[in-house]
Amino acid sequence: MNHTNKQKGKNTFMTIDEQYMDLALEEAKKAYTSGEIPIGAVILYKNNIIAAAHNLRETIPCATAHAELLAIQEACRNLHRWRLTGCTLYVTVEPCPMCAGAIVNSRLTRLVYGSSDYKAGAVESLFNIVHNKSLNHQAVVTTGVRMEECQQIMKDFFRERRKQLYK
Amino acid sequence: MNHTNKQKGKNTFMTIDEQYMDLALEEAKKAYTSGEIPIGAVILYKNNIIAAAHNLRETIPCATAHAELLAIQEACRNLHRWRLTGCTLYVTVEPCPMCAGAIVNSRLTRLVYGSSDYKAGAVESLFNIVHNKSLNHQAVVTTGVRMEECQQIMKDFFRERRKQLYK
Repeated sequence: MNHTNKQKGKNTFMTIDEQYMDLALEEAKKAYTSGEIPIGAVILYKNNIIAAAHNLRETIPCATAHAELLAIQEACRNLHRWRLTGCTLYVTVEPCPMCAGAIVNSRLTRLVYGSSDYKAGAVESLFNIVHNKSLNHQAVVTTGVRMEECQQIMKDFFRERRKQLYK
Repeated sequence: MNHTNKQKGKNTFMTIDEQYMDLALEEAKKAYTSGEIPIGAVILYKNNIIAAAHNLRETIPCATAHAELLAIQEACRNLHRWRLTGCTLYVTVEPCPMCAGAIVNSRLTRLVYGSSDYKAGAVESLFNIVHNKSLNHQAVVTTGVRMEECQQIMKDFFRERRKQLYK
């Protein structure tokens, strides 16, 4: 299976996962522009993007308005069902406990993320919610996809915010 | 402090927490009537109920439409802020990882619940998300409030469902 069907500069190619993560990164950039912590997510189903969202916690304002949760809610609306079997969620940063729990609750088949969140991540860092055998579902996980870019936008955001706080 | 200001039958009194749990139980009954897993929640802020919700996963349909998450979203709308500092969430059953994560994300001050969920509860059973010191917030927790009634409505629901499945 050829996963390298799009050129990324000279002599480099993007895998299918890297291409879809590009759309999640575009969502993260929208969050950055709005002054929100820059995390973006998209959901893929049968080769179609059925949901795209970014963090809107401050904008709405709502504590649950994380990119992943908003994308899962949009995907449920679009598929007219709460089970997201057959779907892949691409998100720029490792999900928090709320979003990892939502991935299990929605029976999402696959999760792909870029950067780990060593402090609060709930897939491999602080908790491992999506693989726990006591829960009703376990997702297949791929990590580190376009990690540097997913990390960089977060670093840029917090550096900028610190500058504004201390100027 | 006198927590016993409402009579519950002969020679029994309800604490303040038991009274508010009554409203969460009323929500759970609405879920039961709609064929949803009967879990209800209310949020109290400065002696006012600012949100009341029940599980609507099948009705909407949406994987994130748990009672607690819907109540947190409603409380954020009503207070026009994502921080629910000063609020108490009453819920009939121990929150799942998604809802426990939402409690932390919303900085809810206090959580009161009735029945434990030994399989998937994320407060004391499977995970302990709301007390984890690595996260940005820890909630104060009271458990076992009107536990028998909170358990009974769940037992009745699943007994009824099994009957319908095997008749």
